[in-house]
Amino acid sequence: MTTQTIDTTIATYLAAWNELDPQRREALIARTWTEDGDYLDPQAAAAGHDAISALIGAVQEQFPGHRFVLASGPDAHNDRVRFTWHLVGDAGPVAVGIDFATVADDGRLRSVTGFLEQP
Amino acid sequence: MTTQTIDTTIATYLAAWNELDPQRREALIARTWTEDGDYLDPQAAAAGHDAISALIGAVQEQFPGHRFVLASGPDAHNDRVRFTWHLVGDAGPVAVGIDFATVADDGRLRSVTGFLEQP
Repeated sequence: MTTQTIDTTIATYLAAWNELDPQRREALIARTWTEDGDYLDPQAAAAGHDAISALIGAVQEQFPGHRFVLASGPDAHNDRVRFTWHLVGDAGPVAVGIDFATVADDGRLRSVTGFLEQP
Repeated sequence: MTTQTIDTTIATYLAAWNELDPQRREALIARTWTEDGDYLDPQAAAAGHDAISALIGAVQEQFPGHRFVLASGPDAHNDRVRFTWHLVGDAGPVAVGIDFATVADDGRLRSVTGFLEQP
């Protein structure tokens, strides 16, 4: 795996959250997270690619027809990155969040923490 | 050391950043960070209480008469917390940042990452 920029990693991260096809989603997840990578937010936790893919699939079922879009960032320094996203449906954003992550040497994410902004 | 709430920890964190007396600052740092705790932002890195205290002292010399005040949060889930702060002088805020941290079982911070908001 070649080293990728953090911009590419975050774009791939959002693409994974939006990919409905499980096989394509797994491929995007593999380009986004290290093998032992994890995700943690106030409502969910997942460790490893399979668990992350299952979590994303469950969120997609909860919000059919919605898409995650980058709202600001990524803003990175050292091996840390933050960015904000909107979950957008036909009527506009239904959720706004900020994600913080640690980044591996190859540019993939080790550990992602999500926070939800107050509406 | 007894377990403290994250609100107390973050209040103590900001008090440490504002404490000019090195001995009192060290005491506040000991209540804020675990012994192996660290701090990392775009301009500085410090690991352990002594290095953190030296870093805070250097920032205080750079911004005499300024104070760090909590702007929002803390917002915590699992063992993670985020909050925003303003560095305020006589003419108002001169810097705005968001800090993200991992929290130990006793309520102290293990690892703090600071980001600066664009002015």
